[in-house]
Amino acid sequence: MDELNFPPPLRLALAGLGTVGVGVLELIEVNRGIIEARAGRRLEVVAVSAREAGRDRGIDISGHAFEADMTRLAQREDVDVVIEAVGGVDGPALALARAALSAGKGFITANKAMIAHHGLELAELAAISGAPLTFEAAVAGGIPVIKGLREGAAANAIERVTGILNGTCNFILSTMEATGTDFAEALAEAQAKGYAEADPAFDIDGVDAAHKLAILAAIAFGARVDFPAVGTSGIREVRAADIAQARQLGFVIRLVGVADCSVGELLQRVRPCLVPLTHPLAHVTGATNAVVAEGNFAGRLLFQGAGAGAGPTASAIVADLIDIARGQAGPPFSLPVHALQPMAPADPGNRIGRDYIRFTVADRTGVLAEITAAMRDAGVSIESLIQHGRAAEDGGEVLVAMVTHEGPERCVARALELLDGSPNLTAAPLVLPILRD
Amino acid sequence: MDELNFPPPLRLALAGLGTVGVGVLELIEVNRGIIEARAGRRLEVVAVSAREAGRDRGIDISGHAFEADMTRLAQREDVDVVIEAVGGVDGPALALARAALSAGKGFITANKAMIAHHGLELAELAAISGAPLTFEAAVAGGIPVIKGLREGAAANAIERVTGILNGTCNFILSTMEATGTDFAEALAEAQAKGYAEADPAFDIDGVDAAHKLAILAAIAFGARVDFPAVGTSGIREVRAADIAQARQLGFVIRLVGVADCSVGELLQRVRPCLVPLTHPLAHVTGATNAVVAEGNFAGRLLFQGAGAGAGPTASAIVADLIDIARGQAGPPFSLPVHALQPMAPADPGNRIGRDYIRFTVADRTGVLAEITAAMRDAGVSIESLIQHGRAAEDGGEVLVAMVTHEGPERCVARALELLDGSPNLTAAPLVLPILRD
Repeated sequence: MDELNFPPPLRLALAGLGTVGVGVLELIEVNRGIIEARAGRRLEVVAVSAREAGRDRGIDISGHAFEADMTRLAQREDVDVVIEAVGGVDGPALALARAALSAGKGFITANKAMIAHHGLELAELAAISGAPLTFEAAVAGGIPVIKGLREGAAANAIERVTGILNGTCNFILSTMEATGTDFAEALAEAQAKGYAEADPAFDIDGVDAAHKLAILAAIAFGARVDFPAVGTSGIREVRAADIAQARQLGFVIRLVGVADCSVGELLQRVRPCLVPLTHPLAHVTGATNAVVAEGNFAGRLLFQGAGAGAGPTASAIVADLIDIARGQAGPPFSLPVHALQPMAPADPGNRIGRDYIRFTVADRTGVLAEITAAMRDAGVSIESLIQHGRAAEDGGEVLVAMVTHEGPERCVARALELLDGSPNLTAAPLVLPILRD
Repeated sequence: MDELNFPPPLRLALAGLGTVGVGVLELIEVNRGIIEARAGRRLEVVAVSAREAGRDRGIDISGHAFEADMTRLAQREDVDVVIEAVGGVDGPALALARAALSAGKGFITANKAMIAHHGLELAELAAISGAPLTFEAAVAGGIPVIKGLREGAAANAIERVTGILNGTCNFILSTMEATGTDFAEALAEAQAKGYAEADPAFDIDGVDAAHKLAILAAIAFGARVDFPAVGTSGIREVRAADIAQARQLGFVIRLVGVADCSVGELLQRVRPCLVPLTHPLAHVTGATNAVVAEGNFAGRLLFQGAGAGAGPTASAIVADLIDIARGQAGPPFSLPVHALQPMAPADPGNRIGRDYIRFTVADRTGVLAEITAAMRDAGVSIESLIQHGRAAEDGGEVLVAMVTHEGPERCVARALELLDGSPNLTAAPLVLPILRD
């Protein structure tokens, strides 16, 4: 590099020295030569902040100033870019983001919850001060999918984004598939292997995936982020029997986020779905993440990789840093924030598609007649119906699964309303949408 | 958009009005609103060039100036960026590229052959004049893999890039796999469906994939493009029996480009390989392309999509255009051209791995003894050996396939040398490397 013409170093502050924060410091040290060559600038970590200054993290932080109050990182005159690796929807992370962007400092975050809830406000602050705001690491870990949508597919009208956005759920579902175990057992294995938290609700109820989906939808469609409109259900109700049944029909079950604006309104949902074996998401196993974007010229683009972990998350954070160093960070949601459109939430009842429906019923005469009559009365056309044998340990409980022909989802909901309260049903039915091939 | 502060339009010239060139014009018309919003500038197609001015292309070009001599596009003062959709290693495309870059005009191309052969020279011209040079469409069609490597994975040392880079070959191999047909039949089907040219040599002998691999390797490793160093063999020798045999062993056969710099030297090869069913490339069927990059922090990243066609290619070209409009096109090969390293080509004999070897032998006593003795003498350890039954129509020809234990590839080559000239072998053996899981 030409030392004489080299621009001044980019001066960084890092908030949070947990797994991700330490990963960022390690990445910068290990790959410094590559990173600085690509950034065209030297990088200097000026200051860090964490709850405890002295804790052993296996990394030497004595060369950086330490701020006990992380908001002070944004006030330092010797800092150009603040990296937030703290987490949390509100609180210190949000205060730091506001302070940094208001002070005209670049801000990089892996915090999907904060961006899903406050991304528009922060993008407005960034637009006012002209500071770059980036969050590649907030969606799908190390996979450069935000860049892929915002820049790689920038020439396309994107109609639909479909993704496996939570590694914990994908690990559990693919473990259930591979071993035939039920949900509780697979969850315990995920916890033992560190893929699931002690309190796994945030992951297995789909909230984490919903945060990411809301961010992807905004970028793909040039829409205002609308996290509250994401319909979310998790994977607790999926049984080993559902997975086995789906497999026989040529599908796997995955927790899938779907954002679709093909009818002019915005449908955003995170739900366990049946994925045809011919679909690119069907072969995504373990804690992997994957996103499929459908562009009107590019066709179907798949981005796949590690969705979490210190290394992949740090990789995405430092990729943002390189973009900022080169002055190449565009508007955070692909369009200037004032150009983002508010999109009306779509009524999921209008979705035209096929569904898998599984009933848990009492083992007595007339059950099938009642179910099929309700389907008929609600206008649901049944493509195939499978009655499982009675499982001895289920105490007289029988599973009945069916696949519908393509039709409006509201008809399925109506059929379930007709059956609501029936003494023949021993539990709430499970409806899983079937992804299009 | 704020009309008062809007920058002047970006003025384009387009050379070539074949499928790709017309696709670019169509894309710009259909998605103009989206493209200009993301580019932050209006786009104006000022001039076009093609062999015949008057031919009906299903698109109105009367609003653009027509230049019979395409090099004149680069001389027009009212042009900022030239898009080349003509093709050819040398000749008019190269003359146009040189003229445009020397004149300080941005240059966008889908021409993989030209970039593989002359990319360094063009990058030097671009560096001198400060003009952007981009070629996302040259590799893997509409998949933003150049951006993914150059920017998305920019924080990583990448050790290996593995890709399915030719849709024709992948269509043929996956057709053979799905239907059990032999190569000639699958090629005929590919030709009938428009996936293969009347003269398919360029695709099926691996040259097209080799061009793309050389470009990817340069970007991934920050190396000087070295197309002559790519070892290339195509798919003509792959038989239905090989595919069936591989399947039984848990593999599919794909034409795979591998670029590996893990030992400090650069191995670049395009060869049919056995891909384990657990590898992300194993589920890539039809004319699809896919690239796996392995970063030291991001882990394995997969980029997959349509590798050819007017829509996907135009999508990549216009993505480049948007980058240029925003002033965000970085150095073409990820580093400034003077910083690209010459890397010594690796001796493929040093590769440590497993191989599939298929012999075509005479149906007589002692054949297996001769083959296995040669393996032993060359230090090749055999993991499994399968002797096929004699196919009646093959006139006494028998196929013997084996999978080796992990070892240096030079030992396999030595074993084949020992067997060279043996009257027991009725054709040259076929060696297919096995990809690591």
